[in-house]
Amino acid sequence: MFEKVDALLIKTPDENFFYFTKLEGFYENSYAVVLPDKVITIAPHLEEKADYFYKSKKELEKILKDVAKVDKLGINGEALSYKDFVYLKKLLKTKLIDVSQEIKKLRVVKKPDEINLIKKAYRISNEVVNQLDFRNKTEKEIVKEIEMAILKNNAKLAFEPIVAFGKNSAIPHHMASNKKFVLPALIDLGAKYKGYCADITRTFIDKRGKKVYEIVEEALYMAIDNMVEGIKAKEVYELIEKFFKKHGYKMLHGLGHSIGLKVHDGYALNKKADFILKENMVFAVEPAIYTKSFGVRLEEDIIVGKRKGKIIA
Amino acid sequence: MFEKVDALLIKTPDENFFYFTKLEGFYENSYAVVLPDKVITIAPHLEEKADYFYKSKKELEKILKDVAKVDKLGINGEALSYKDFVYLKKLLKTKLIDVSQEIKKLRVVKKPDEINLIKKAYRISNEVVNQLDFRNKTEKEIVKEIEMAILKNNAKLAFEPIVAFGKNSAIPHHMASNKKFVLPALIDLGAKYKGYCADITRTFIDKRGKKVYEIVEEALYMAIDNMVEGIKAKEVYELIEKFFKKHGYKMLHGLGHSIGLKVHDGYALNKKADFILKENMVFAVEPAIYTKSFGVRLEEDIIVGKRKGKIIA
Repeated sequence: MFEKVDALLIKTPDENFFYFTKLEGFYENSYAVVLPDKVITIAPHLEEKADYFYKSKKELEKILKDVAKVDKLGINGEALSYKDFVYLKKLLKTKLIDVSQEIKKLRVVKKPDEINLIKKAYRISNEVVNQLDFRNKTEKEIVKEIEMAILKNNAKLAFEPIVAFGKNSAIPHHMASNKKFVLPALIDLGAKYKGYCADITRTFIDKRGKKVYEIVEEALYMAIDNMVEGIKAKEVYELIEKFFKKHGYKMLHGLGHSIGLKVHDGYALNKKADFILKENMVFAVEPAIYTKSFGVRLEEDIIVGKRKGKIIA
Repeated sequence: MFEKVDALLIKTPDENFFYFTKLEGFYENSYAVVLPDKVITIAPHLEEKADYFYKSKKELEKILKDVAKVDKLGINGEALSYKDFVYLKKLLKTKLIDVSQEIKKLRVVKKPDEINLIKKAYRISNEVVNQLDFRNKTEKEIVKEIEMAILKNNAKLAFEPIVAFGKNSAIPHHMASNKKFVLPALIDLGAKYKGYCADITRTFIDKRGKKVYEIVEEALYMAIDNMVEGIKAKEVYELIEKFFKKHGYKMLHGLGHSIGLKVHDGYALNKKADFILKENMVFAVEPAIYTKSFGVRLEEDIIVGKRKGKIIA
């Protein structure tokens, strides 16, 4: 990133504020100036920690002009709003360069402490789904049960769980309804632990779904085995696409996405995925087959390895 | 808004997508085109409902060019990212006009059904705080208890609760720690019900806090009485500022903010608040005094009335 810019200016809301500062809390209208050798934080005086506190817009602007005084200033064009971009450009009178791609690249390979937090989030998610009791409950009731169980485990919600019973499982992003439990039951959930997200899907089937389930399961393990350093990501997608085709099915959506501070953390595993897999990248891998009457999606969180991928469990 | 633009284009994530479409769900990379007489929705084919579904970027672009074909296209510059702005400008080859202020203005006066949802969120929040049992618990444990109680009441979290015991209450945005319960205890929480947020704060005090509490309480009711149609918002702020000054205290932060689909829904009650209060605007009003050793903040959700404001309860 620092080949392109002298410093990076992050404005909240943006998960990169936490990534670079490790500061948790509200931090509305807060800034991080990321320099090659240090990170400077600016926050309203209501917050607990920052290098600079401001009480008024005037004070903030004075600090910003002082601290972000570089020739080429990077911004995250995917999070910074258009209005803030216009404001900062006028205020700082410097060149603002969108380095969102560089930031994503920086974040996609996870550090050991990040992997540990995703692992913890994965374990909580897995435990929660394994302890669900579906009998006589509606989709909405199961959503609530999942959410409460995640909180009980000292985690937050990575996203609102998807719970789809019967033919609702044929809709990838079904919104939970008052439909009562029947098989198949598709459950897509994720805990967020200290900022880091897991994202898993289980599908519970009856006899009708058995054949489809076995194909999806085989696809999942095939994908995991191929999440290997040096492989182009789209090759894994294509492998599964081909495998499904052989069985007469199509890919309705991508094979997965990187996870981290966000559930969709920047990189997608699809037919356009031109990047090369590297050790310690972490992806949610989610092969799925949707028929007219039901769907089977199996999703695991995978660390890319030197010789093969493995579930982060 | 339609004096300035022919149509408004909203891209998710943006709570205005829900505001204009009432569609709940993931809706990543989804769009709403708001025209004077109708709203057109565009979403990935993974979603359940939309007017147009797309499977590829190419399909999306074709639909967008077709549906958003107007001379002056409005955008929400506060939510649309800089990158998406650049992308849409290039794609649509039309004038993109930031109408974020007009959208906020549209949203600040609440419709009856919106008021009912905020009322429900308020009631849940109030019930949750009233049922807390602090004995022997830490700030973090109370945060968890609040979050679970909100979910149990079929609501979501409007924001992560603030729980501050003892001298931590002197920090407006204190992050919950492992500190055990002592008085004073400041609890700032909000439920979100069907998309609409409440935001309330209670402070439980011991004898030392009594005098400060009474001043803040008087300020709260003074503010509520003055949340009246026709009054300039900053006059309410100034009234409380003056009242505090008389007692030897300063305002450390604004007097409040509009609430709705967001906790901070667009308008602030501070010394710069030049707008005129109107019936059915809804604000969280939160006078507070912070001393060196503790803080007292009292926050209620207020509907502006013709003759006086009232708590939304």
